[in-house]
Amino acid sequence: MTGAHAAWLPAAAFRAIGSRRSAVHGRGLLVETVRQELRDACARFGGSSEADDDAELVLTSDTRPGSPATDLGPEGFTLARQDGVTVLVAGGPAGILYGFFHVVRLGEEAFGADFPVQTHRPAMRRRMLDHWDNVAVHEVMGQVERGYSGGSIFWSDGALTKDLERVRAYGRLLAASGVNAVSVNNVNVHATEARLLTDRLDDVAALADELRPYGIRVHLSVDFAAPVSVGGLRSADPLDPAVRQWWAGASARVYEHIPDFGGYVVKADSEGQPGPFAYGRSHADGANMLADALAPHDGVVHWRAFVYNHRQDWRDRSTDRARAAHDHFAPLDGQFRDSVIVQVKYGPIDFQPREPVSPVLAAMPNTRLAVEVQITQEYTGQQRHVCYLAPLWREVLGFRPWRAAGAAIAEVVAGGGGMVGVSNVGDDRFWTGHPLAQANLYAFGRLAWNPSLEPAAILDEWIGLTFARGADGVPEQLRRTLHAIMDDSWRTYEDYTAPLGVGFMVSPANHHYGPDIDGYEYSAWGTYHFADRDGIGVDRSLATGTGYAAQYPRPWSDTFESPATCPDELLLFFHHVPYIHVLHSGVTVIQHIYDTHFSGAERVHAMRSSWQEIEQADLVDGDLYARVAERLDEQVRSAEEWRDQMNAYFFRKSGIPDAQGRRIY
Amino acid sequence: MTGAHAAWLPAAAFRAIGSRRSAVHGRGLLVETVRQELRDACARFGGSSEADDDAELVLTSDTRPGSPATDLGPEGFTLARQDGVTVLVAGGPAGILYGFFHVVRLGEEAFGADFPVQTHRPAMRRRMLDHWDNVAVHEVMGQVERGYSGGSIFWSDGALTKDLERVRAYGRLLAASGVNAVSVNNVNVHATEARLLTDRLDDVAALADELRPYGIRVHLSVDFAAPVSVGGLRSADPLDPAVRQWWAGASARVYEHIPDFGGYVVKADSEGQPGPFAYGRSHADGANMLADALAPHDGVVHWRAFVYNHRQDWRDRSTDRARAAHDHFAPLDGQFRDSVIVQVKYGPIDFQPREPVSPVLAAMPNTRLAVEVQITQEYTGQQRHVCYLAPLWREVLGFRPWRAAGAAIAEVVAGGGGMVGVSNVGDDRFWTGHPLAQANLYAFGRLAWNPSLEPAAILDEWIGLTFARGADGVPEQLRRTLHAIMDDSWRTYEDYTAPLGVGFMVSPANHHYGPDIDGYEYSAWGTYHFADRDGIGVDRSLATGTGYAAQYPRPWSDTFESPATCPDELLLFFHHVPYIHVLHSGVTVIQHIYDTHFSGAERVHAMRSSWQEIEQADLVDGDLYARVAERLDEQVRSAEEWRDQMNAYFFRKSGIPDAQGRRIY
Repeated sequence: MTGAHAAWLPAAAFRAIGSRRSAVHGRGLLVETVRQELRDACARFGGSSEADDDAELVLTSDTRPGSPATDLGPEGFTLARQDGVTVLVAGGPAGILYGFFHVVRLGEEAFGADFPVQTHRPAMRRRMLDHWDNVAVHEVMGQVERGYSGGSIFWSDGALTKDLERVRAYGRLLAASGVNAVSVNNVNVHATEARLLTDRLDDVAALADELRPYGIRVHLSVDFAAPVSVGGLRSADPLDPAVRQWWAGASARVYEHIPDFGGYVVKADSEGQPGPFAYGRSHADGANMLADALAPHDGVVHWRAFVYNHRQDWRDRSTDRARAAHDHFAPLDGQFRDSVIVQVKYGPIDFQPREPVSPVLAAMPNTRLAVEVQITQEYTGQQRHVCYLAPLWREVLGFRPWRAAGAAIAEVVAGGGGMVGVSNVGDDRFWTGHPLAQANLYAFGRLAWNPSLEPAAILDEWIGLTFARGADGVPEQLRRTLHAIMDDSWRTYEDYTAPLGVGFMVSPANHHYGPDIDGYEYSAWGTYHFADRDGIGVDRSLATGTGYAAQYPRPWSDTFESPATCPDELLLFFHHVPYIHVLHSGVTVIQHIYDTHFSGAERVHAMRSSWQEIEQADLVDGDLYARVAERLDEQVRSAEEWRDQMNAYFFRKSGIPDAQGRRIY
Repeated sequence: MTGAHAAWLPAAAFRAIGSRRSAVHGRGLLVETVRQELRDACARFGGSSEADDDAELVLTSDTRPGSPATDLGPEGFTLARQDGVTVLVAGGPAGILYGFFHVVRLGEEAFGADFPVQTHRPAMRRRMLDHWDNVAVHEVMGQVERGYSGGSIFWSDGALTKDLERVRAYGRLLAASGVNAVSVNNVNVHATEARLLTDRLDDVAALADELRPYGIRVHLSVDFAAPVSVGGLRSADPLDPAVRQWWAGASARVYEHIPDFGGYVVKADSEGQPGPFAYGRSHADGANMLADALAPHDGVVHWRAFVYNHRQDWRDRSTDRARAAHDHFAPLDGQFRDSVIVQVKYGPIDFQPREPVSPVLAAMPNTRLAVEVQITQEYTGQQRHVCYLAPLWREVLGFRPWRAAGAAIAEVVAGGGGMVGVSNVGDDRFWTGHPLAQANLYAFGRLAWNPSLEPAAILDEWIGLTFARGADGVPEQLRRTLHAIMDDSWRTYEDYTAPLGVGFMVSPANHHYGPDIDGYEYSAWGTYHFADRDGIGVDRSLATGTGYAAQYPRPWSDTFESPATCPDELLLFFHHVPYIHVLHSGVTVIQHIYDTHFSGAERVHAMRSSWQEIEQADLVDGDLYARVAERLDEQVRSAEEWRDQMNAYFFRKSGIPDAQGRRIY
């Protein structure tokens, strides 16, 4: 743990709370966590953590039946300041923990002018991180699949990490962002990891012990075929009584080791993982069987909806990967047990920088749904590029599948499965490889707690905590610079990569890093753009295409159906159009490609220049500065590569010159 | 060694010689090898290996000074049959060995009607195989770099193989084909392999012991930086006396272990390997330093001319990888020691199915040159496709850089470094993965011995030996079928892959297997085709292009300079032309692409059908049949993939339909 960066909990962030007189009421593990936090902060900044009558901050919970605080739920709290005393009343111990970190976040503001009662309650009950970590180092994927921050923080050298202190520090960071569940191994469950469920429960329990004081429950990804691969049965048929009994027994043993175990995560019948199809059973059969095994223990099943044919023939245009999740899952609505959460990627393909919101999220009103996002930047620069993802997630959460008439995605998932993010954390000193990628992890937790937060406001919180220095907080120049670099970095990334929602022009050879425009064009993965000399895009209309557009409720199905109404940024996802098609923005598709690629790469140059000014002003630690600087160099190089390849590719194909006569190779 | 296929030395191939009365005169290791061969053959077929007065076959050497046989050199021999006695007179023990296998090859023909004296003498003194084998399994490349036949036959589990019997069997096969030198480790020398030169000489000596009875000398690939990486010096500067002394000492120790050691193979300053450039020295400085270290021991240095900038920027059209070897080496002609062999790949890029012959081979009259070919099918189907390469090599060897006025490539290299092939052999039961790929290994040795042999005749020899069965030899149907499948398989492969010499449309993600038309188009490797909506090809003319064409002597430089005279099959290597350019063949470039891809794939279908008829007739062993059948299935699949991707790609780009209206996706 020596030397790990403090991320958004540096000592300086506790200055306000640590210099006050505080009192904490209540008992239990989480309350003790808060007491210790206060003691540490006060030891540093001269306050008192055991004030009584003269407390300036009182943290308490009120769980008496009928108390107004019980409406808050176990994690909610109210906060008010009256007559110079800040009072936090929580609905339970977890509420005290989250409230405490909220007061830390407020800093001096929590102790300034009086303010009336504010109510804080997580919008989503489940705010979960999935770690795609392997225990053993995988031959192709390394230890962390799609990990760009070094090895796993949970597993090392084929065993439980020896640095449990770091796991605890991770839990603390997560609690301060709002996360309350973590799955500790990869959804692609290999042989070694399949045994976490059985032979290696002590290891999982040790992780749970470190995370429990921060209100975080541990989940496991399991191998659907475990009764065969681990249990020695001949079948994993979910309707076979022996199989059901095996899972019941295995689950009971899990809870003997970890009484507050969260549940299972399952990727079944997807990209080669085993599943119920082998036995002629449905996803509901499979998920319900696991739910029944967990039912006595109050655990849940996260069943991923990421199911498609990954052995497509590009010559067969009747197949459309985008349709697959809806085709598979919508008909099963209502068939899942209550403790099954169907976990749906935000878009129909695979975590592209721009996709329409998955229609599955609007198609299963009688199912608990979670929306899954990818914090790790597989398709958004792999933590070598700055790409602040909160604006993307905010758009997804705010999307209203039924337009004004209905709920937003945030509300669809709030009552059910909540929000799941694939973690971007590894054993890197800065946790996330790119130090600025910490903001994505932080923002994930904050949005899962409150999806209506503005991305720029979340970023501002993160800056205020992370770069706190002395009594004056964060230097204004640094704050401005970070906003300038990060606020629009997702749209910048979108601009210099695949255009107008068409997606997947990434390099297969480099594990999705960097451009390869035809890299997946003739592959089995179902990810095509169909660019020819006249035009580009995938016709997913009902009238002449794959019919994917019709998977949306009206009026969105109509909106997407026609190029005339389809939003520009998704045009090529839904339609094949000529390069000379004029966008709503007024420019042609080809000119849009040129313009966005030139301007996107230019903005990355500007990002790097802004950062260099930070150095001259000596506003951040030298090693953090250097790490970011080195990655910005790579981002500049890569953005220029994207720009030049994309422009060359489409100029060679279309023969249409740039209206502004800029350099195309 | 249990179960390894007999390749071209099955017991049945020795029927004729083994049923005769033979006498061998002479002494020494190689003569003893022949004696033992004869004893074994006679034991099986009832002949006598120690006949005296009544011998039907006499094998002898005549090394008396002034004898006509000494003109034959140590490996040559004469053969005649007179009055019912076949007499072989060799210039030395090695000549007896090669003569013995020649008689085996002749079979009954050697014992039929009388024939006058024939003289056999290898055209090339050095007929060498380079094994790109690693001792340790390399993370990316596996154990054998570009190996498609399993692991190494020399190294296993990080140590010398335990199956030395197999190494001996390999030596025997090679001797029967004509090979007389083997380099036993990869030219990319990794850390473990660098120590073969020092700590692990016993292992190399053990290999030499197995190969020596078959007249094969062992060579080692060495790390140019070995004085630093292995020796602990601070420099590997070839002009530094300490470095020179280190190599002298290391070389002396090698010869203490292996008195007939062949010498060093070096890939320097190429694709990341260290070399003399780091010290401001030339390739000649580097090579000569090693030559001086080997000089007291009669060893040679194979110094590879495969040197180019592999970190090119595709945007910079002034660089041309094709020019690199000539630019680097031609100016050094005359500067190399006599015991340095500059080893030149046959084409200027990298073992593509079709390239012009390297102009380096015509540019260094005062240097010993070897021509390097790739028996392992990196770019020619990776031993999943049938691709008989002798016709390609024959074209290279027969190329006359100065036209009728001058020597062919075979003559250029004959007096110097000879021919080097990258081996296609591994620990696979059939030696070469694809059983029919054995023919490439055999043909390599035969062409190195006699470059004027016809590929179909060599194939016929190979068939006659490999598929010999009982007294009647090879069934005529099998012989016909194998010719039908193999004779033109290289041109078929060319037809369904990259067109007209443009090369390198292979998949980076799949290690060069299968199509990816733009896979290297924007890469750093310098391998481009520049296809746009109007045309395709690389302008390498002097007038308007990179000037590569001018690296050839006249008249070839003129021939290549103009699209009007450039041979069709190399047109896109030398010129960028419109799709509607009419070839000498009378069709347009685009129609040529469609035609060759449809017909190429069709011919692969026919190959598979022919093979299936073999099964019905039960003409080969079941497991060999099955292995070939399985690979032909893959070849059909892959050829269709090539056809459909290439046709789709160029139809999308050109917009020009197939004149025959065939299916393009």
